[in-house]
Amino acid sequence: MHTTVSSATREVVIGPDQPFCLIGERINPTGRKLFAEQLRAGDLSRIAVDVEQQVAGGATMLDVNMGVPLTDEAELLAKAVTMIQELTDLPLCIDSSVVEALEAGLSAYRGKALVNSVTGEQERLDAILPLVKEHGAAVIALPNEEDEIPDDPRKRLEITRKIVDVAVGTYGIPLEDIVIDPLAMPIGADSTLVRKTLDTIELIRAEFGLNMTLGASNVSFGMPDRHALGSAFLPMAMTCGLTSAVMDVRTPQIVEAVKAADLLLGNDEWGASWIAAHRAKKKTA
Amino acid sequence: MHTTVSSATREVVIGPDQPFCLIGERINPTGRKLFAEQLRAGDLSRIAVDVEQQVAGGATMLDVNMGVPLTDEAELLAKAVTMIQELTDLPLCIDSSVVEALEAGLSAYRGKALVNSVTGEQERLDAILPLVKEHGAAVIALPNEEDEIPDDPRKRLEITRKIVDVAVGTYGIPLEDIVIDPLAMPIGADSTLVRKTLDTIELIRAEFGLNMTLGASNVSFGMPDRHALGSAFLPMAMTCGLTSAVMDVRTPQIVEAVKAADLLLGNDEWGASWIAAHRAKKKTA
Repeated sequence: MHTTVSSATREVVIGPDQPFCLIGERINPTGRKLFAEQLRAGDLSRIAVDVEQQVAGGATMLDVNMGVPLTDEAELLAKAVTMIQELTDLPLCIDSSVVEALEAGLSAYRGKALVNSVTGEQERLDAILPLVKEHGAAVIALPNEEDEIPDDPRKRLEITRKIVDVAVGTYGIPLEDIVIDPLAMPIGADSTLVRKTLDTIELIRAEFGLNMTLGASNVSFGMPDRHALGSAFLPMAMTCGLTSAVMDVRTPQIVEAVKAADLLLGNDEWGASWIAAHRAKKKTA
Repeated sequence: MHTTVSSATREVVIGPDQPFCLIGERINPTGRKLFAEQLRAGDLSRIAVDVEQQVAGGATMLDVNMGVPLTDEAELLAKAVTMIQELTDLPLCIDSSVVEALEAGLSAYRGKALVNSVTGEQERLDAILPLVKEHGAAVIALPNEEDEIPDDPRKRLEITRKIVDVAVGTYGIPLEDIVIDPLAMPIGADSTLVRKTLDTIELIRAEFGLNMTLGASNVSFGMPDRHALGSAFLPMAMTCGLTSAVMDVRTPQIVEAVKAADLLLGNDEWGASWIAAHRAKKKTA
């Protein structure tokens, strides 16, 4: 199944027969005190640096989140979206937990965006899916409800089924425009959690064939050598059916692992991208 | 399912709930001209260096192959086995295409060895499996016949079924002592070949639950940045059910990828090994 998103001038196709979709996650004030302060003061200039770095790192799309407490998030997100679309032609993932902010971001956006995100509660579905439909966007959906992450992959599959029913049945959103986040959890909290995420990916692929994305850095939270864990995790999840990840692409080791998995899974014919990347690396070395 | 191998004093358990079994592959004259010449002259001293390096790299077992043209391979393999067992207590994989050499190696060996390997032709099965049974060894079996590697994973599954039938039914070898090599092929030759190996692993796991091992470096043959490809491939294959690989463990990047996958698959409880390896690395840095 193919999920197509776009900016005004560029289209990106997400799918199991496509190179993995890297959604650059850096344009987000969470955990970045200085950046949050700048945004609160109305200074958006730092965004240009982040865009440049994520593009240079190989992002296929960019996630934009402007969740700064005590600001008008809707206004800030609309401004950021407009500014970023002047800087790059990569399609955007419009990221907020605030419905009004999503609405403002979508209104400012030119192209077909990916909305990040909706969860399985009926009231969230009813608040966000009409916006997705109205703007002809695609949407990331998390199979959890009431802030509780279900442990059992079958329960996550069940909530996915509910989300699909509402999105397609009630709101007329095309099935291929639903991208599921199978919920990546820290391995340090419980050594069975990553296997459960992988099982969820396999179940959703088998039943719906939907595209899937997740926050790639979650699994290594609290562990040493996080890049090595991320570099192993993404090829594993891609093997199960993950087709995208929201991640900071400034780590060459993890991006290279994704490109290696693209090649090994048959999504880089003749290794053309792999060999080109090797040549580029040699040139700059 | 658990495959247990041993030396005189150490036991190694291979299984999906165990840390991945790394079979160090360096003690082999193939492609090593100087080493082959030394062996031909009766000088086995280089083996001690290889053993030390593979042990230091983290090997769980060691593969021993003495295939030097124009020598008495049986005598050489028996000598090497005896010598290596004086140097390390890691269990050995006795590797030869010559039946007499396997027999001599098994006779010299103390413990329960892994025989590398048998293929699916009836005459090979009838030549090698009685030796495996007689010595109470385990055996690596390749699901190919007449030097032809079947392209279709279902055909590999079918040959696996034949091997299992003969090994268990005719020769009374316990099912858990059969380790299948699902045949890793170079991605550079055909971009669908690795997916076929992964599919074979999944099919064999689903039908037999057998342990599996393969030559990990094959997939990257002819490609640049081979270590990065190996580091992505093994976690992918482990996710599908691969429980061991024959590989040169002198590449820290690939060994680290395997350890990361062990942790992510739940085979390194609380990350104890992962954290210990991180501390050891910091100490030597």
